[in-house]
Amino acid sequence: MTKPSIPKGTRDFSPETMIKRNYIFDTIKSIFNLYGYKPLETPSMENLSTLMGKYGDEGDKLLFKILNSGDFLASTTDEDKSSSIKLMHKISEKGLRYDLTVPFARYVTMYRNDIVFPFKRYQMQPVWRADRPQKGRYREFYQCDVDVIGTTSMLNETELIMMINDVFKALKINIIIKLNNRKILSGIASFIGYSDKLTDITVAIDKMDKIGYDNVIAELRDKGIEDEGINRLTPILTLAGDNRTKLASLKEILKDNEEGLKGIEETEAIFSLLEDCPNATAPLELDLTLARGLNYYTGAIIEVKSADTVIGSICGGGRYDNLTSIFGLPDVSGVGVSFGAERIYDVMNELNLFPEKSTQTTQVLFVNLGDKEARYCLPLISKLRHEGINSELYPDSVKFRKQMEYANKRGIPFVIIAGEDEIAKNCVSVKNMINGNQNTVGKDEFVSLLTKNN
Amino acid sequence: MTKPSIPKGTRDFSPETMIKRNYIFDTIKSIFNLYGYKPLETPSMENLSTLMGKYGDEGDKLLFKILNSGDFLASTTDEDKSSSIKLMHKISEKGLRYDLTVPFARYVTMYRNDIVFPFKRYQMQPVWRADRPQKGRYREFYQCDVDVIGTTSMLNETELIMMINDVFKALKINIIIKLNNRKILSGIASFIGYSDKLTDITVAIDKMDKIGYDNVIAELRDKGIEDEGINRLTPILTLAGDNRTKLASLKEILKDNEEGLKGIEETEAIFSLLEDCPNATAPLELDLTLARGLNYYTGAIIEVKSADTVIGSICGGGRYDNLTSIFGLPDVSGVGVSFGAERIYDVMNELNLFPEKSTQTTQVLFVNLGDKEARYCLPLISKLRHEGINSELYPDSVKFRKQMEYANKRGIPFVIIAGEDEIAKNCVSVKNMINGNQNTVGKDEFVSLLTKNN
Repeated sequence: MTKPSIPKGTRDFSPETMIKRNYIFDTIKSIFNLYGYKPLETPSMENLSTLMGKYGDEGDKLLFKILNSGDFLASTTDEDKSSSIKLMHKISEKGLRYDLTVPFARYVTMYRNDIVFPFKRYQMQPVWRADRPQKGRYREFYQCDVDVIGTTSMLNETELIMMINDVFKALKINIIIKLNNRKILSGIASFIGYSDKLTDITVAIDKMDKIGYDNVIAELRDKGIEDEGINRLTPILTLAGDNRTKLASLKEILKDNEEGLKGIEETEAIFSLLEDCPNATAPLELDLTLARGLNYYTGAIIEVKSADTVIGSICGGGRYDNLTSIFGLPDVSGVGVSFGAERIYDVMNELNLFPEKSTQTTQVLFVNLGDKEARYCLPLISKLRHEGINSELYPDSVKFRKQMEYANKRGIPFVIIAGEDEIAKNCVSVKNMINGNQNTVGKDEFVSLLTKNN
Repeated sequence: MTKPSIPKGTRDFSPETMIKRNYIFDTIKSIFNLYGYKPLETPSMENLSTLMGKYGDEGDKLLFKILNSGDFLASTTDEDKSSSIKLMHKISEKGLRYDLTVPFARYVTMYRNDIVFPFKRYQMQPVWRADRPQKGRYREFYQCDVDVIGTTSMLNETELIMMINDVFKALKINIIIKLNNRKILSGIASFIGYSDKLTDITVAIDKMDKIGYDNVIAELRDKGIEDEGINRLTPILTLAGDNRTKLASLKEILKDNEEGLKGIEETEAIFSLLEDCPNATAPLELDLTLARGLNYYTGAIIEVKSADTVIGSICGGGRYDNLTSIFGLPDVSGVGVSFGAERIYDVMNELNLFPEKSTQTTQVLFVNLGDKEARYCLPLISKLRHEGINSELYPDSVKFRKQMEYANKRGIPFVIIAGEDEIAKNCVSVKNMINGNQNTVGKDEFVSLLTKNN
């Protein structure tokens, strides 16, 4: 029999890992709920007609396609079988979800008459990509998207930033939030005389952090930006001062550019609204080099970085005006961000931020010293569970040492021992596995002792 | 542009449905955690070598197979292309998970040296089957399995039954738990002289509830059970009295059958242990006709029915001795049950058991009466969220009526109105959307008012 294995690029998540992952997902969800976002789930499979052509040629190749059931070759011709591409179109009609955005757009288009707008939804589900597996890149991974659509107010951007603050405060991750606006980027491109090269310009300046100013300028020249343009761009990229000062300078520079001014106005509105939000405490920086998949965004662009690690972006998103136009429904504007759960996991692991105790860890193990003793424990364990304390009774009356080892390996902080002596005295012994202390307490008092410790 | 749709047999889950589904999943999970079970997740895709041959020929057909990436025809011959079956083996190496049992067995086999036994795990993930879609049968649906392996003590069965009690008590579903034992069924088959027809006998008597005694007997005759066998079986199937009485009578009948007696002993142990469990209050019936996928179980067989609906089994499982033998690892005994989340949903919907309020519903909507008013609300909404109250600020200052409609449609019970008057007086108006009452309270008191109502 061959040793079983799992497909390349996929992972099993052990209980230890799941407890950590769930801690992240549950924390994020609870904050989403506080802000009135609601859960949505779409099928793992979508029709290929929904998915194909939405992620570019490369994306089409990376879609996992599902073989039609039954005699899938039945109505194929020799011509169909002459190439993989031709045959694929005949023998596969469904593919696995590649991201959460296209299914969301498909959902909104399908149910547009039933949805109450503004529609605030979050979606946390796995996606699949037939990428070459490598360190940190998987073929199955979770995305965690939160969006509000059907509203253009800057209050949405503001609340998203407040929510980002709350999520990372809850996870104890120090962050820096970067903010930009696509309209400002358009304004800048136009101001330097290269409206037609907006993408080239933003792709280049987006690399400022990674490759530095000189290399960015070299790339811009390479893309055909002449000296005059670069001379106009340089003072913008090197704007100094705080966000307000930068915006004021920029307003002066772009004073003749309507789109640029609109972007500045939107950004000022967000900064101004945030002054009234007592919890928006993470550093927020206007970063004119921030672009992120520019073609998709039409207004605010948001990115979050962990302040204490070199792990890059852990959350990002922005405003878009055409979510559903790919499905023929125009003018659905929205704003949203995606939390990088896998990277957040890496940050928390690196900084040791996972709590020792979670809703999913066992707090108390009852040692099993025999039939009679186990019976004595059954009503006691019920009491603890009734108080919300996760508790286990070791099922077999094996050696005491083996049971203590189990408690240790599972990281269970309290062990209850009830042998003949304890039963005779109507009490139990409670052993603290962290400091080794052991106390004998009455059957009726041990619950409150453990509740206090919980 | 064609109207988008989703594959047959799959479903979108709207926020309203998701909130209900999550209520079920979260409740079940919290009880699993109380009992020391830990979460596990396995990949959606498994190698076809792991899946094929584990579910019978029919199962192999119902597996969703994933087309290999890239030029999948590259190394195929004309002979390969001559039939769908032959080609499938050449162009597909992965399939979607069909259940949670085989991946669990694969996991335990792979990580047997790292796992601390007894290993208590739960797994709640979707599975996929290329079944013909029909009412109540989907191609993608969740399973929710909980098992403890590496231990043979009847305390495990007992705790599972306690846990079942707690889960359904938390969901407010009245249940009847049925218990049987595969060894008793073997003993009965042997006692009536048809050990070789164990499967036929159990398949027939398992239908007692549905088709009635006469039809069961007819089916048994059909399968070749002669009068003498039926005469020996009849008194067993019609045993009267409570569980203890039935077991006592059965013990007398099967007194010369070792396996049968072992099954009775196991069952008596469970009944006896449950007497010490204060929360095991749901009716528990010894049901000698209960079989459920018999070939898999080796000891206790458990099934749970909703007492107040005709929706059949909502949870079931049992003891097995050979979880991992399909992967070459013998003697891994365990016991577990699977909660039928989809059916539990139907029961709760039918009986109107979903709570009005959940951790995912919005409790308070702040009406947006303009820029200045929204700014006044921002720190107030932060306060509420800080108290754990899910709150939204309507993002656009549209017509009052439209905003109230939004609150109504979303089922939000409280609306906060803060206009010029309220701002001047440093207060807010709180409208109860259920009884229509409206109160004006100070900016500092409204939080405690709503906390009380929460």
